[in-house]
Amino acid sequence: MRDVYISGVGMTPFGEIWNMSLRDLFVEAALKTIADAGVDHIDSMYVGAMSPGLFVGQEHIASLLSDYLGMSGIPAVHVESACASGGIAVRQAYIEVASGISDIVLAGGVEKMNDGADVTYALSTAADQEYEVFHGVTFPGLYAMIARAHMHQYGTTREQLAEVAVKNHAHGLNNPNAQFQMAITQETVMNSTMVADPLRLLDCSPVTDGAAAVIVCSEEVAKKSGKSLVKIRASTQATDHIALHSRKDLAALPAVEKAATKAYKQADVRPEDIDLAEVHDCFTIAELVVMEELGFCERGKSGTAVLEGLTRLGSKRPINTSGGLKSKGHPVGASGTAQIIEVVEQIRGTAGDRQVQNARCGLAQNMGGSGGSCVVHILEGLS
Amino acid sequence: MRDVYISGVGMTPFGEIWNMSLRDLFVEAALKTIADAGVDHIDSMYVGAMSPGLFVGQEHIASLLSDYLGMSGIPAVHVESACASGGIAVRQAYIEVASGISDIVLAGGVEKMNDGADVTYALSTAADQEYEVFHGVTFPGLYAMIARAHMHQYGTTREQLAEVAVKNHAHGLNNPNAQFQMAITQETVMNSTMVADPLRLLDCSPVTDGAAAVIVCSEEVAKKSGKSLVKIRASTQATDHIALHSRKDLAALPAVEKAATKAYKQADVRPEDIDLAEVHDCFTIAELVVMEELGFCERGKSGTAVLEGLTRLGSKRPINTSGGLKSKGHPVGASGTAQIIEVVEQIRGTAGDRQVQNARCGLAQNMGGSGGSCVVHILEGLS
Repeated sequence: MRDVYISGVGMTPFGEIWNMSLRDLFVEAALKTIADAGVDHIDSMYVGAMSPGLFVGQEHIASLLSDYLGMSGIPAVHVESACASGGIAVRQAYIEVASGISDIVLAGGVEKMNDGADVTYALSTAADQEYEVFHGVTFPGLYAMIARAHMHQYGTTREQLAEVAVKNHAHGLNNPNAQFQMAITQETVMNSTMVADPLRLLDCSPVTDGAAAVIVCSEEVAKKSGKSLVKIRASTQATDHIALHSRKDLAALPAVEKAATKAYKQADVRPEDIDLAEVHDCFTIAELVVMEELGFCERGKSGTAVLEGLTRLGSKRPINTSGGLKSKGHPVGASGTAQIIEVVEQIRGTAGDRQVQNARCGLAQNMGGSGGSCVVHILEGLS
Repeated sequence: MRDVYISGVGMTPFGEIWNMSLRDLFVEAALKTIADAGVDHIDSMYVGAMSPGLFVGQEHIASLLSDYLGMSGIPAVHVESACASGGIAVRQAYIEVASGISDIVLAGGVEKMNDGADVTYALSTAADQEYEVFHGVTFPGLYAMIARAHMHQYGTTREQLAEVAVKNHAHGLNNPNAQFQMAITQETVMNSTMVADPLRLLDCSPVTDGAAAVIVCSEEVAKKSGKSLVKIRASTQATDHIALHSRKDLAALPAVEKAATKAYKQADVRPEDIDLAEVHDCFTIAELVVMEELGFCERGKSGTAVLEGLTRLGSKRPINTSGGLKSKGHPVGASGTAQIIEVVEQIRGTAGDRQVQNARCGLAQNMGGSGGSCVVHILEGLS
């Protein structure tokens, strides 16, 4: 297996982008990353998207998007694992470059959610249709059950949940691509509309349009790019039972732990070696449980860690400096790729007002459904 | 890159299977292939499906299906390239085993089409939503335009189109997994209901439920299986403009030619070396154009070749001995994997009354949309 690098990044702003279609969004992100990597062609392409069929009535998007990118002819594949699709796309590109089949692979994610579709229904298809969705459960409902279990077992508080949103909005304030560039307070979160008790509107990531793409490549291509070298030290995936009722512990997300354990082993690093992490905060409770599964704190201690500011920019290991899904936005198929872009920007030292000092080793954790699938990447800057 | 083999195959019968759901179908095919390969675990899994979201309201099927297969925890990915999804799944497994990341990968395809969904709409999402579907075009309409162009440019006749269906039904008669195990005549085809002139009902593949899966593995695992060795000599993919109006020649399918040229090169074989082929006959005209793109006959001569019986079982290079999509059925995401199963059965010499004598080298060609994507595999038996 060959070593694999990321030599280019590019994304659209995230938000309600009414004047751009699915293809417009993807092509903008892809052209930006191709320009950033300084390559004159790509060997193949992976596109992560959760449900272009339900959101905009379009499948076969690998053919469509390679075509509109002006790259018609190349191998192109659409990959899906609900909200983990964007991370999966990068992992498939990693495998293809590692195998030696290709040298330059574009991996991207895209979702056009604001186009008239029933978004709550479309998102619910990431849960078990026959045993969860049929009975009326939605994603805020599923994560509310996880939150209730975590509060019950570990004493996690309403304030701790709120602080995740407050911190991520504070970070997003400095991200020009973020959907919500505004500060919020614990009071704003705790007084926002109830969605699924205990989760309120500002505990939930928004409905977002957007696209993100990276160039995954061989060492030779990366060296030619003139950019600082960012190596993929680990790229791992795991699954779990799709339905909450099949799991032993509602307050845990074992797919995250499985993928992370494999990633630490592959990269030969420990949680303490991670300088920054982008994690899948689709709901505030998700960030807390994920911190524990990644080994960033003891089980049940994540809420306290967040309240103490241990995950803020300026702390030892900030989490979601991009603003996370909460503030940056969550175009479901693109979010996993955008996380990796933030880690690359931090390692390159080009994150502007969000810059983590001396960032060298970063982790991106992307998750599908209520934790039914998870992808973890560990990137390292080589000097 | 390591050599890659197929050591197990398994599929459900294809048809209108009202008493089985998407997950039931996939699990049956997967368990059969695992038993056939004699493996006690799988390292990871790829599932091809075109649109479980639109057909049965379920995305995130990689998590769902690994769970219901009893393999929860392993990496699992859903891949989509419209009707080429099943072939793509095998190709992704090929890349993963070739890279050395995994030794035993399950690659399968599944589609549950008979479940109340608007099938014509769901299938139309494989075409360009904004510039084709919006104006009312459906897939029979797109392939009818290809047929008209082929008839105009090369003098292809109505009888030649009909003979493709007649031959494939004759082959399917001997396939216990085929949806239509019945003989038809040219007259039956030419008197069947008009769908999109010149294509009639019996020029069209049916709406089908079904699943198919194979075990893709390293040489070491293949040798342990005790089955005759079937090596993947080539696994290639290509795309084309998604919309017919963007193409130079309506009577051609350049993605097939691109993928095939790369496959012949990778396998170091010529079209003449192929003992049998499974090709993507979603409509009768498709088989004719594909024969030309694969180099099996001169451009414009495919209709004559079929009428002369040069693609029948017993001829030098029979095509679609399984019955093809036309007679075996076309559960869109599963068809590409089922083609590969037929090639493996032929190489193993276990194809029963459909057996091609001395079959050693077989080709499977799987296509998405109106040729917007194509996957080609060349398999060879090693003695």
